Amino acid sequence: MKIVQKIKEPIKEEMEVFEKKFKNSMMSKISLLNRITFFIVKRKGKQIRPMFVFLVAKLMGNGKIDERSYRGAALIELIHTATLVHDDIVDDSYKRRGFFSINALWKNKIAVLVGDYLFSKGLLLSVDNEDFDLLKIISKAVKEMSEGELLQLEKSRNFEITENVYYEIIKKKTAVLIASCCSIGATSVVSTQNEIDKIYQFGELLGMIFQIKDDLFDYSDKIIGKPTGIDLKEKKITLPFIYAINNVNIKEKKWLINSFKNSNKGKKNINKIIKKVIDVGGLEFSIKKMNFFKKKALKILFSFPKNKYRDSLELIVDYIIERKI
Amino acid sequence: MKIVQKIKEPIKEEMEVFEKKFKNSMMSKISLLNRITFFIVKRKGKQIRPMFVFLVAKLMGNGKIDERSYRGAALIELIHTATLVHDDIVDDSYKRRGFFSINALWKNKIAVLVGDYLFSKGLLLSVDNEDFDLLKIISKAVKEMSEGELLQLEKSRNFEITENVYYEIIKKKTAVLIASCCSIGATSVVSTQNEIDKIYQFGELLGMIFQIKDDLFDYSDKIIGKPTGIDLKEKKITLPFIYAINNVNIKEKKWLINSFKNSNKGKKNINKIIKKVIDVGGLEFSIKKMNFFKKKALKILFSFPKNKYRDSLELIVDYIIERKI
Repeated sequence: MKIVQKIKEPIKEEMEVFEKKFKNSMMSKISLLNRITFFIVKRKGKQIRPMFVFLVAKLMGNGKIDERSYRGAALIELIHTATLVHDDIVDDSYKRRGFFSINALWKNKIAVLVGDYLFSKGLLLSVDNEDFDLLKIISKAVKEMSEGELLQLEKSRNFEITENVYYEIIKKKTAVLIASCCSIGATSVVSTQNEIDKIYQFGELLGMIFQIKDDLFDYSDKIIGKPTGIDLKEKKITLPFIYAINNVNIKEKKWLINSFKNSNKGKKNINKIIKKVIDVGGLEFSIKKMNFFKKKALKILFSFPKNKYRDSLELIVDYIIERKI
Repeated sequence: MKIVQKIKEPIKEEMEVFEKKFKNSMMSKISLLNRITFFIVKRKGKQIRPMFVFLVAKLMGNGKIDERSYRGAALIELIHTATLVHDDIVDDSYKRRGFFSINALWKNKIAVLVGDYLFSKGLLLSVDNEDFDLLKIISKAVKEMSEGELLQLEKSRNFEITENVYYEIIKKKTAVLIASCCSIGATSVVSTQNEIDKIYQFGELLGMIFQIKDDLFDYSDKIIGKPTGIDLKEKKITLPFIYAINNVNIKEKKWLINSFKNSNKGKKNINKIIKKVIDVGGLEFSIKKMNFFKKKALKILFSFPKNKYRDSLELIVDYIIERKI
């Protein structure tokens, strides 16, 4: 059995029920909208977010989940899909998950409106059912995620960027969402605030590992489908580079910074930077950091009773670190 | 005294207090964000939405308003500003209110993120203060507004569009926001559901009048600053044209539709359409409709006790119909 399948096995039924509920939650009387949301449902990805919600809800709710867990997952998916649709504009990414993006098909105007529509559907789902605790979690997440992206735009091209600022950025822009999924899963069944806080931290560490791994792909050519050097070309500074410029002599640092500034001028230049960063141990250091966060994450996870849901969450930690794409 | 000043006179103090509160509600620890929101506060317009909130709150609350009224106004402004920032992308409008749009200054990516950030700040303001009734009103409004815009995109280029579909579109895309401002004003002080429903309808009628008037500018050259024929050029069918194609003979209808299809091919063509629509009474009919809605709106308004706040709301009705820009 594939690893992702194995992870999802204990919540297989819930994921199927959820898919139907999620589809319904997007329905509108406007036929243009339904034609678009049809595309959105079709191009669904791995459904990582609902997976976290259900695994955590099951773990914390002693194997039972609540209607609130479904609504919490739908809320997250609606808001996340809204930001994805908006991101299609942002990124000018004309393909996503193999389908044409909403953006390419229906143009920017519609993309913004559909994003706003999905956002409001998520809000109404929560407001109508008085899931105010869940709404609070997701509102905070949206705030932090947009702050994180903006912080990245502001800082990530600056050579003074420290390791800690990098962690702050990836915490906000990536880890908050996974942490919030865990938090919503826990909150949707009855949990103590202490438990909710613990599982939030677990999700946050997982999210950080995820982003560090993602950033590592820029320096590794062992993977399929994902080209390397993209961040460098876009002049985005990530952990391996931060480590490198802070652990070489002044002459080498100057060379790295100069090469970085010219990194948009050809693949050859980028490959030289990548080689240097690897030579001075930037990759090794990042992997060490991932494993440090993994240890912390597992310590939290193991404070919960062992069962198949916890096992799945444990599998996820390894999967995120080991994945090749 | 200018009419707008006169309208705002009874809530002058509240508007000033509000401005400070609104500024604070946008604050962030991210300096890039604060630099942008500084621009947003600076380019504030006539603040029509808070005005409705406070006038209605004062009218329904017997001259008193609540802290909730301020939060309700801030919620609406935050959400509305968020959609404006997103609209800057949508409309490719590189100028708005005389300043450069956020979009032109900071590019699309930032515009989407800032919009999402403002959205989430509005949500958190409501969630943290448990203003769930206000949040429900605004969530519905966002849903209807995006549906309205999408409905317009779908229907407004179709010659089969009826008067009723036109009303449905302008109700959703424009009137809902004004209606929601009134509704939030009423809800923020203690009002009965019956009163809230009545003032919502008043706001809805006002919003419809506002949009009909706005659409009329396309056919009238008496105004300053606002060029005519833009909707026609963009092939957007509005009330005067709907009236015209349904009240001419088949030959004239064919001519109108053909001219409309070629309306992007020069100002001369557009002017011919405008002349024809005016000749067959499309403008006259639209003005009659505005006055019909005005009568209905005032009937509702006059069911509330007369005082200076009601007088201001009455003044607004006339102002919206008489305005030259």
